[in-house]
Amino acid sequence: MAQGFKVRDPSLAGEGRMQIEWAERHMPVLMRLRSEMRGERPLRGVRVAACLHVTKETAVLVETLREWGAEVYLAPSNPLSTQDEVAAALAEAGIGVFAWRGMTPEEYNWALTTVAGREPDIVIDDGADLHVLLHEEMRSVGERVWGGTEETTTGVIRLRALEREGRLLYPVIAVNDALTKFMFDNRYGTGQSTVDGVLRATNILIAGKTVVVAGYGWVGRGIAARFRGMGARVVVTEVDPIRALEAAMDGFSVATMDEAASVGDVFITATGNINVIDSRHMEKMKDGAILANAGHFNVEINVKALEEMSVSKRRVRRYLDEYTLPDGRRLYLIGEGRLVNLVAAEGHPSEVMDMSFSNQALAVLKIARERGRLEKRVHRVERSQDEKVASLKLETMGIRIDRLTEEQRLYLQKWK
Amino acid sequence: MAQGFKVRDPSLAGEGRMQIEWAERHMPVLMRLRSEMRGERPLRGVRVAACLHVTKETAVLVETLREWGAEVYLAPSNPLSTQDEVAAALAEAGIGVFAWRGMTPEEYNWALTTVAGREPDIVIDDGADLHVLLHEEMRSVGERVWGGTEETTTGVIRLRALEREGRLLYPVIAVNDALTKFMFDNRYGTGQSTVDGVLRATNILIAGKTVVVAGYGWVGRGIAARFRGMGARVVVTEVDPIRALEAAMDGFSVATMDEAASVGDVFITATGNINVIDSRHMEKMKDGAILANAGHFNVEINVKALEEMSVSKRRVRRYLDEYTLPDGRRLYLIGEGRLVNLVAAEGHPSEVMDMSFSNQALAVLKIARERGRLEKRVHRVERSQDEKVASLKLETMGIRIDRLTEEQRLYLQKWK
Amino acid sequence: MAQGFKVRDPSLAGEGRMQIEWAERHMPVLMRLRSEMRGERPLRGVRVAACLHVTKETAVLVETLREWGAEVYLAPSNPLSTQDEVAAALAEAGIGVFAWRGMTPEEYNWALTTVAGREPDIVIDDGADLHVLLHEEMRSVGERVWGGTEETTTGVIRLRALEREGRLLYPVIAVNDALTKFMFDNRYGTGQSTVDGVLRATNILIAGKTVVVAGYGWVGRGIAARFRGMGARVVVTEVDPIRALEAAMDGFSVATMDEAASVGDVFITATGNINVIDSRHMEKMKDGAILANAGHFNVEINVKALEEMSVSKRRVRRYLDEYTLPDGRRLYLIGEGRLVNLVAAEGHPSEVMDMSFSNQALAVLKIARERGRLEKRVHRVERSQDEKVASLKLETMGIRIDRLTEEQRLYLQKWK
Amino acid sequence: MAQGFKVRDPSLAGEGRMQIEWAERHMPVLMRLRSEMRGERPLRGVRVAACLHVTKETAVLVETLREWGAEVYLAPSNPLSTQDEVAAALAEAGIGVFAWRGMTPEEYNWALTTVAGREPDIVIDDGADLHVLLHEEMRSVGERVWGGTEETTTGVIRLRALEREGRLLYPVIAVNDALTKFMFDNRYGTGQSTVDGVLRATNILIAGKTVVVAGYGWVGRGIAARFRGMGARVVVTEVDPIRALEAAMDGFSVATMDEAASVGDVFITATGNINVIDSRHMEKMKDGAILANAGHFNVEINVKALEEMSVSKRRVRRYLDEYTLPDGRRLYLIGEGRLVNLVAAEGHPSEVMDMSFSNQALAVLKIARERGRLEKRVHRVERSQDEKVASLKLETMGIRIDRLTEEQRLYLQKWK
Repeated sequence: MAQGFKVRDPSLAGEGRMQIEWAERHMPVLMRLRSEMRGERPLRGVRVAACLHVTKETAVLVETLREWGAEVYLAPSNPLSTQDEVAAALAEAGIGVFAWRGMTPEEYNWALTTVAGREPDIVIDDGADLHVLLHEEMRSVGERVWGGTEETTTGVIRLRALEREGRLLYPVIAVNDALTKFMFDNRYGTGQSTVDGVLRATNILIAGKTVVVAGYGWVGRGIAARFRGMGARVVVTEVDPIRALEAAMDGFSVATMDEAASVGDVFITATGNINVIDSRHMEKMKDGAILANAGHFNVEINVKALEEMSVSKRRVRRYLDEYTLPDGRRLYLIGEGRLVNLVAAEGHPSEVMDMSFSNQALAVLKIARERGRLEKRVHRVERSQDEKVASLKLETMGIRIDRLTEEQRLYLQKWK
Repeated sequence: MAQGFKVRDPSLAGEGRMQIEWAERHMPVLMRLRSEMRGERPLRGVRVAACLHVTKETAVLVETLREWGAEVYLAPSNPLSTQDEVAAALAEAGIGVFAWRGMTPEEYNWALTTVAGREPDIVIDDGADLHVLLHEEMRSVGERVWGGTEETTTGVIRLRALEREGRLLYPVIAVNDALTKFMFDNRYGTGQSTVDGVLRATNILIAGKTVVVAGYGWVGRGIAARFRGMGARVVVTEVDPIRALEAAMDGFSVATMDEAASVGDVFITATGNINVIDSRHMEKMKDGAILANAGHFNVEINVKALEEMSVSKRRVRRYLDEYTLPDGRRLYLIGEGRLVNLVAAEGHPSEVMDMSFSNQALAVLKIARERGRLEKRVHRVERSQDEKVASLKLETMGIRIDRLTEEQRLYLQKWK
Repeated sequence: MAQGFKVRDPSLAGEGRMQIEWAERHMPVLMRLRSEMRGERPLRGVRVAACLHVTKETAVLVETLREWGAEVYLAPSNPLSTQDEVAAALAEAGIGVFAWRGMTPEEYNWALTTVAGREPDIVIDDGADLHVLLHEEMRSVGERVWGGTEETTTGVIRLRALEREGRLLYPVIAVNDALTKFMFDNRYGTGQSTVDGVLRATNILIAGKTVVVAGYGWVGRGIAARFRGMGARVVVTEVDPIRALEAAMDGFSVATMDEAASVGDVFITATGNINVIDSRHMEKMKDGAILANAGHFNVEINVKALEEMSVSKRRVRRYLDEYTLPDGRRLYLIGEGRLVNLVAAEGHPSEVMDMSFSNQALAVLKIARERGRLEKRVHRVERSQDEKVASLKLETMGIRIDRLTEEQRLYLQKWK
Repeated sequence: MAQGFKVRDPSLAGEGRMQIEWAERHMPVLMRLRSEMRGERPLRGVRVAACLHVTKETAVLVETLREWGAEVYLAPSNPLSTQDEVAAALAEAGIGVFAWRGMTPEEYNWALTTVAGREPDIVIDDGADLHVLLHEEMRSVGERVWGGTEETTTGVIRLRALEREGRLLYPVIAVNDALTKFMFDNRYGTGQSTVDGVLRATNILIAGKTVVVAGYGWVGRGIAARFRGMGARVVVTEVDPIRALEAAMDGFSVATMDEAASVGDVFITATGNINVIDSRHMEKMKDGAILANAGHFNVEINVKALEEMSVSKRRVRRYLDEYTLPDGRRLYLIGEGRLVNLVAAEGHPSEVMDMSFSNQALAVLKIARERGRLEKRVHRVERSQDEKVASLKLETMGIRIDRLTEEQRLYLQKWK
């Protein structure tokens, strides 16, 4: 199978392989699924194009698909996130990978076009760039695609827009909406990795600090819980009164950002909105305050305003910039306001991607099995798939749970 | 207005009034709504029949409706739960209350029939007994009802069944489904009052004990969090793998009830199902194990099996029965397996009922205002009502929250 | 043995016996010690006089001593704390008990004099009233006493004063200072029972409340941890900077009482000092604030000042008084400022007294065994006794722990 | 002042200076002390020799001493821990630093001898190597030393041995024993940095994992609390029954290491003893178990046994070695069993060293001021110094605390 590939340095393959093996150990659900269906080869001859962050966890997913018989092509979903050693290992293993860290926009587009040009039967995407390409410039390829999956909220929103306009060319399974994805990666994954990112970037003692968390959605909840767990006093800000009330009942202080600005030692945004920390807040902050973003994009902190307010700026630690304001106060911004857990830590632990990518793998299988029978719309992940992933996860953790007795099943039917 | 009433002892009114005043202090949202609309009298001349537990919190609700101009009739929703002193105070204040603790079934039915016989315009119910009466025996009255509300899950299920069969005579607002009700009373209210009930019934030291919580829904979550907060090691049992995984990620031990049976010191059921603790579990329990139910009915613990297994039984503390098994082990059952927080403690704190009953009051207002314009079906509480209740609650707690800026509002629109 | 007794109502013995049996179940260490040495009867013929709260847990202690062969006389350590049904059961069982609830000061003194008049060999005390009697009015009896024990901090301070003055007539073991007493009963016992007392007295929802805890000693730590565990935001006040810093590092807010006064919903004192909540604080408190004392005496809250500031006062719930201030604000005081966990709840759970009273029993044994060989001073509990109690407690909880290997023992010796 | 110095690369000074400035920001107590006494120059002309880890925090200490007028010489307390860029910055600033990372034993001895050769008046040590040198090989210098300080438990033990043998040449203040040192750095510093180290070394998801913590002293307590705070189930092992009981009452599972070995996902030692995790435990561990040491030396995990048991070994991540056992199970050891928080994270955060080194600075001042008046023994840090450090820390955190009123002071005197 001469699939071709393009990576930075093939000689990194050994190191990449070791990382992939470490990920495999912490992705037991996906590995279980892999081995259960290895003999069957349910994707024999299927061409899969994937547009995903080229990380060790993605490697475990695409190698699973390949062991199931698929021919896999991989482009990065972000020009900056590729781990070159993992790409090298995948190339060595026969995956058609076209990715290196620090691609230019042109190179990034070339990679997408290249994998789309392989005329995939199934398309996995993270952000919907590849789906959009197949609905616009490469529509003729898109028309022959059996179906696709989408990993992110943003991507699902874009695909739902296509659906509403009646332009969706193939069915898409919104893996993002699986309970075993969003309830777990946001709360437990981002919660932990945000603490991790703040520690690596600053090495401050969290105990005794006042940490302000903007937003009490799944991400904010995870972050608030973990910083409390490390000994911080946590102040939550919200715009939604129901979530704000929940935060208060969970024992957190709740305040406006204007109130919180003057008491916080560390500020973390997790709202999905713009300028949540704005110049008027920064004007009130204590000398030495640390700012980080754990939301969706680097828009939550108004970095532009901070730049303009400052009389000088310098990098004081890797990932940490010091801004000096005219009155002498200094504010510290982690990772230029980009996602703190990706920039300063290692993103989601493999265990979290295990559930997410098991859902991906099962969604791909479903598309292959039900080829031609799925409606051309955005599909939710079925409850049964979610339960399967959760059950396997529990099993690999050595946890057994109860089953309903027949009597109980009847009682519930009667009652509900 | 000669409404009539029937209570146990009118001379208890003074004591009842004091209790109502204590509840008023801890129901600031409802009191705020009461005073905001007192001048307007939006229910002038409206007849309201309510079937609710006759407690101090219910008193605050029905007196609010009366201050808004309504003529209010009150029957109990349970023959055992009436606080006679509160009933006396309500009677003295001119509410048409027909309730005393320990009614016979006949007396209970008489009370429902009596309030239904007042030909209400609006009907508030807790369990749907009054709604069902108005759809069956007293159908001619029911046909003239403008609309109703329902407080409980069970009641909503019964009403949805009527709706599906096309037999619903009037619109019903499912107050039970308000976020500001079920997300708060189950987790925070039942969580706390279950700890309270166990303490009052047993006075055991919780620190160092192993507490087994069956079910990790909202109720189970609240209970698990609170017992952990008191120093227990908590083991969660579940039948739903997704919830089980959540419990594990929240740091709890997760096991089957068969495994947990032999390690637990205290067992609390919160599943909504039958025989969750059954004879085979009781056979494995340690000498001295304590059993309590915080689920919906007294079916979660198989009390009948326990009775049959035991060679003797005696009451060792108020609300606590000791069962001696043939092998000499003794198991302790709180409150005969009925709801531990109602039997051995005081049920939901007023603060929790504040939100629930504010939703009731707003739902009644809506029915009155939109008389004739609401479809004859089961309606959800609108998001705006939920937000209003949450916002008032925050305000009365002295908490202020952020508002979206115009820029942020536009950003969200664009993005979502 | 015609020892004589005097109790309120001997017919309550059956009820008292049931309570004692419940205590026995939750005092497994003391019961284990009882049965281990029952055959040996190590106190055969020894006369023991005890001055202790006449509760079900005390009953387990004195009956243990009796089963070991002692002749036991019991007077109350507080005229208000006697459980009459327990006293009745003890009388029936042959303990020389002289106690009833609500003794006058004269009756209380009579009871002390009576048990002292039995010419005890060993004296157990809680507060040192009996010890002082034996050092002053009944000095001739005191001179023949083999030794004594003391349960409380206050008592130990009084005895150390006697020691310093060279007036101590017999050796005293300060059971109060056992690690397995003060580290456990203050933190875990008082922590839990204070939450319990506040709930029984008020039934407020703790989640979302701001609870101010004055003092961060063992008691304050326990209270702060437990209220946080129930969902409160906790503010700690302290005069000791090291403890204050610890509270801050443990994630609590730390403030002066002047600052905390205006934000607290509930205030709990645990300092061992006077007027910790004084009129100037009460002047700042929110309408509805609740005050409780969990410290040593009813001096921590300046109740006299509160009385004087108020225009009216009434009892709104059992154990709860409402004070109305001239500006209309109402403050609520639990149990007249006396110990909230004793007044409104049931004091320490039996599990906590288990360790305390096992130390008492072992101290009595030690005095009997080393009769005449102990110096006439205040003795600390030996580390080995503390370890024995802790080991037995772990064993009865089903917990096994590691032992040092020979290699490890040598390593530690070398290293330390 | 041509003091001389020897560092790896003077051109790193700029980078080192930036790190020192970051430390200064997070050591506000020491910086406050520095500036308060800068004018006074209380150490004018005093020669200080320090043997400390050459880190950014140490830089803040030695530069404080220099600003107070001292002539400072610095040798490393460990041949591996020097930060070369900090050493360069110190050299540039005129500190007589003789340190680079990776010194040979000969070079290390040379550095100690060099600073001792400067004939210091005051000696600061971390482990007592320099003190021992001054008591043995360089005794003539030692005889003229005014006094010294010691940072570590190990060092204090060595000095107490010298004291017992009557050989101590000068008074030593045991900074290690300051409450504001050991109660804070062990619990809060090591607690956090151990989590940090495990995350950097493995990037595993902690939520849902079972973490076994060996030892429940201050370090173990901190580690257990922090891992629980990150969502782990924590199992504690202990040899001391009192500590074990405390762990159980704090809600942790307590077990023997033999029991815990088969259930743990991660094992952390914090006992101060040898072979706490031994071959018989490793034989029972689950495939994939991760081992780390946070105790005093790299003896707690029997690494030698692990090496011998294994059929192969490879480094799978920086700081992480994979050992494959004959049965195919793989165990993962962090940092070769050395201190996980030093090897894989950055050791104590500056905030923790702030208190420790403020105590050092105050101890040095005390020696200078009371020159000739301190007894030649190991002195504890005075309570007043501890309180001063704590008070300043609170102040720099913006926290105010209460003061005893005159009435309260008198009440305490009377009572205690």
